[in-house]
Amino acid sequence: MLKGLTRAGIGAVGSIEDFVRAAAAHEFEAITAGGKELEDWITEKGADSVNAFLSEQGISIASIGLSVQWRTTEEEFTAGLARVAKDAEAAAAVGCTTCTTYVLPSTDDKAAHFMAIATRRLRICAQILAPYGIRFGLEFVGPHHLRTRWANPFVWGLQETIDWIDAIDERNVGLLFDSYHWYTNELGIDDILRLDPSQIVLVHINDAPDVPVSEAIDNERLYPGEGVIDLAGFLRALKQIGYKGTVAQEILVPKPSEESSETLLLRSQEGFRKVYSAAGL
Amino acid sequence: MLKGLTRAGIGAVGSIEDFVRAAAAHEFEAITAGGKELEDWITEKGADSVNAFLSEQGISIASIGLSVQWRTTEEEFTAGLARVAKDAEAAAAVGCTTCTTYVLPSTDDKAAHFMAIATRRLRICAQILAPYGIRFGLEFVGPHHLRTRWANPFVWGLQETIDWIDAIDERNVGLLFDSYHWYTNELGIDDILRLDPSQIVLVHINDAPDVPVSEAIDNERLYPGEGVIDLAGFLRALKQIGYKGTVAQEILVPKPSEESSETLLLRSQEGFRKVYSAAGL
Amino acid sequence: MLKGLTRAGIGAVGSIEDFVRAAAAHEFEAITAGGKELEDWITEKGADSVNAFLSEQGISIASIGLSVQWRTTEEEFTAGLARVAKDAEAAAAVGCTTCTTYVLPSTDDKAAHFMAIATRRLRICAQILAPYGIRFGLEFVGPHHLRTRWANPFVWGLQETIDWIDAIDERNVGLLFDSYHWYTNELGIDDILRLDPSQIVLVHINDAPDVPVSEAIDNERLYPGEGVIDLAGFLRALKQIGYKGTVAQEILVPKPSEESSETLLLRSQEGFRKVYSAAGL
Amino acid sequence: MLKGLTRAGIGAVGSIEDFVRAAAAHEFEAITAGGKELEDWITEKGADSVNAFLSEQGISIASIGLSVQWRTTEEEFTAGLARVAKDAEAAAAVGCTTCTTYVLPSTDDKAAHFMAIATRRLRICAQILAPYGIRFGLEFVGPHHLRTRWANPFVWGLQETIDWIDAIDERNVGLLFDSYHWYTNELGIDDILRLDPSQIVLVHINDAPDVPVSEAIDNERLYPGEGVIDLAGFLRALKQIGYKGTVAQEILVPKPSEESSETLLLRSQEGFRKVYSAAGL
Repeated sequence: MLKGLTRAGIGAVGSIEDFVRAAAAHEFEAITAGGKELEDWITEKGADSVNAFLSEQGISIASIGLSVQWRTTEEEFTAGLARVAKDAEAAAAVGCTTCTTYVLPSTDDKAAHFMAIATRRLRICAQILAPYGIRFGLEFVGPHHLRTRWANPFVWGLQETIDWIDAIDERNVGLLFDSYHWYTNELGIDDILRLDPSQIVLVHINDAPDVPVSEAIDNERLYPGEGVIDLAGFLRALKQIGYKGTVAQEILVPKPSEESSETLLLRSQEGFRKVYSAAGL
Repeated sequence: MLKGLTRAGIGAVGSIEDFVRAAAAHEFEAITAGGKELEDWITEKGADSVNAFLSEQGISIASIGLSVQWRTTEEEFTAGLARVAKDAEAAAAVGCTTCTTYVLPSTDDKAAHFMAIATRRLRICAQILAPYGIRFGLEFVGPHHLRTRWANPFVWGLQETIDWIDAIDERNVGLLFDSYHWYTNELGIDDILRLDPSQIVLVHINDAPDVPVSEAIDNERLYPGEGVIDLAGFLRALKQIGYKGTVAQEILVPKPSEESSETLLLRSQEGFRKVYSAAGL
Repeated sequence: MLKGLTRAGIGAVGSIEDFVRAAAAHEFEAITAGGKELEDWITEKGADSVNAFLSEQGISIASIGLSVQWRTTEEEFTAGLARVAKDAEAAAAVGCTTCTTYVLPSTDDKAAHFMAIATRRLRICAQILAPYGIRFGLEFVGPHHLRTRWANPFVWGLQETIDWIDAIDERNVGLLFDSYHWYTNELGIDDILRLDPSQIVLVHINDAPDVPVSEAIDNERLYPGEGVIDLAGFLRALKQIGYKGTVAQEILVPKPSEESSETLLLRSQEGFRKVYSAAGL
Repeated sequence: MLKGLTRAGIGAVGSIEDFVRAAAAHEFEAITAGGKELEDWITEKGADSVNAFLSEQGISIASIGLSVQWRTTEEEFTAGLARVAKDAEAAAAVGCTTCTTYVLPSTDDKAAHFMAIATRRLRICAQILAPYGIRFGLEFVGPHHLRTRWANPFVWGLQETIDWIDAIDERNVGLLFDSYHWYTNELGIDDILRLDPSQIVLVHINDAPDVPVSEAIDNERLYPGEGVIDLAGFLRALKQIGYKGTVAQEILVPKPSEESSETLLLRSQEGFRKVYSAAGL
């Protein structure tokens, strides 16, 4: 399981090349990136040079984010689809095989109708990604406060999301499995052990403050090992089922940290050391 | 557009052979039936004999109802699937190319989750029907009282149902289009004219009492021509877009009529004459 | 059924605007175009202006050609997919709802393996086109000489192509139905009457010289009404089943005609008049 | 990886209960069965009793064979589909999650057309199996003599079969991976290591006589460890990628062995001991 970083939680780390270097310098093996960012990088440096650099740094591109807006109008959705194809093309050129999006647990739209529309839209995204060898991960979002943030409940649970993936019914769709949402859904080790590794596209690792589960706020996350989530058990269970992909931290906070990027990277490095070690990895 | 009958609204008409004879004797050209009923009939008489009888009477089997329970547990659902295959096999043996189900406009389940589950289940039904050359029609149900009958709103509109059919994404799925639900959704002629005939699998024709639209009760239907729905416009629009299938009445009422089957058949015959004639058909 | 033109058979007609004007001036109602050509036009003039011009000229864009290479390597295929999305976006912006490709009747690849690969690739194309509201038409190619042009027979018949469309299994895939291939497959009126109009995405109309059917060469086509194909019967049957799309000529010849574009346009106009009139249209 | 038996290679072992007992008595952990056979057994004894017996014997039902004829006419195919649903229902009732079929490497049909038809038919089978939680495995068949046994080459290789599975495009379809076909395709360890375990539905293990690969006959198989195939490498590679399913022998021979069932079972037991041990399992 590769130690990975997103840009959330490490301050203003600079260009993607700087990000890669910073990740490599702190024992990370993978980062996430934007599809357009990758395309621009490849355009500037050439794919061969980018791949040589990544290889030299020992960093892989774990995932890109889905760039198209699938939650609003049909016009916005279709207007962003050609971009998804370009993102996928860039990702494939640097060996990235994963794209992800998150699912808000409530909606102002009529829930059943929005589910029908979103099922079609996410299927289309999966279909556009597939020929590039890219899998598509859906992240269920557990924090309780978001379940009532908009008028109607949507989906936030693991089983609901698996059922939705079955409804989408494309072979390259799976889960983005985040420890924060595993925790806020009050799921256990057994829930992980019931999964097949082929169902998991990417893993996020984050920790939660010592407040009642129902009061854990989505953007008040802690670095791995600094909070109350059983991350050792989480990682051990993922290892046990055979998950071999990236485990990336994504520390969402209410406002940018005032600490330096270097300090935050060291804190991330230390967090991973701690939880990987506790998990016996 | 073939004049058709369901068993709803014509009293206790007897065996399926009696039903066929009664339909033929009152200027109807098609009836709906049960898949098991067809299988039993074929088992008893042989498919050739059944087809000869239907041909002699000038009656076609317009549709069968979906027999599997897709609204409750997974166990109930899978337990009924082999029966769907047998129903389809029997239907195909007598030239029937349509199967339908209705969609209740509210649900006690969480709406988004139920939509995801139902999308998968109805897709499976469509997939089982397809190799037998059978199309699958979903009937949206418009009456207002049913929209709040259960805890959470589901879908009841035309566009919602089309969006759902897109989410199901099988080539043999379309609409069961009922004038009562067209009316209670306050749709107009233009809404029909925007459809392609290939989207419509079956048409139901029923009339509504002279009460405010929002107070029209699902099982207080009138015979065609006896109520306030613009059935002439409805039929004309269907004809105009090129619909060539069956138009079947389905008179749902609170309790069985006390009139004789013969009286009700004559009333149905008269109703069809009236509205077809008003539509210039 | 709209009278349509491709650029094949009308000489060097100029820019797409010139092509539109020329088509309009000769009683045509639709043309086919390239996706990139449409994109460039929209980029230059704006979609509103392009649509106003088309509307003013009474010309619709009937179809674009599939730009991606799906017959060779996986690399070439994926390299062209983002372009398909851009083509589709441009097409949709000018109201074009159709994209087409042709199928060569023999191949140097192992036939079964190529069929498996091509099934996946054409499905991907259909999936990319679908969210833009664009249907995808496959043109079977009948001339006998092409059936043995490469090492292994592939598909050239109507039923084979329908079976392939069933294998692709996307809701927006249908036939590009060309009179030349209907003729060289020795199909009849009945074969058309068995089709549902929803199966036909686009129609090509061309005539054949008075040689034995097995000797009709793919690029030795005649203008409608100048040859031996029963085009009146062809059009009548299409009308009878309810086809309402475009009927476009595509006169493939061994080398560019020496006649002026104006002469060829008049010849096309006259050809359409003749066969539409013979068909009672 | 569970040690498994099919009935091929163990003589007339008797009823399914006898088969289970015999397998258990010789260190096997799984057997394959017929869907109808399972249904009859369940009908006679009840699912609870059958499951208790299997559990007591330590035997699982690894797989059923696909019972429908998908290689001939559409009539034969559709006539067998309801049976597939019943087979799947019976299989699911005893915890069996796999169904398999084999692919002959040549055909008297036109190869491309048959591929299109077979793609649709096998997809339908996969769709019928899916709601019962059953995966569907396709077995590519390598022996050279079968590649020219019928008029036209079809598919026999690993990559071809993976490409076909992509064309079928259902989430529950994968490979039945047989060491005999791995060997006769002259594949290596690396070809196994490139697979994801989720691509493999079932494994067959058989050995080949010491003749040139191109002369290995499909039904002249040897027991594991008695021939020249590197079965230790085969098993080690499967273990390495994380395959956890059943490895079943299927000794096809020209005519029934004259040895007793007990002798053949002991030979099978010894063969598995030998190759599992050589693989370090």
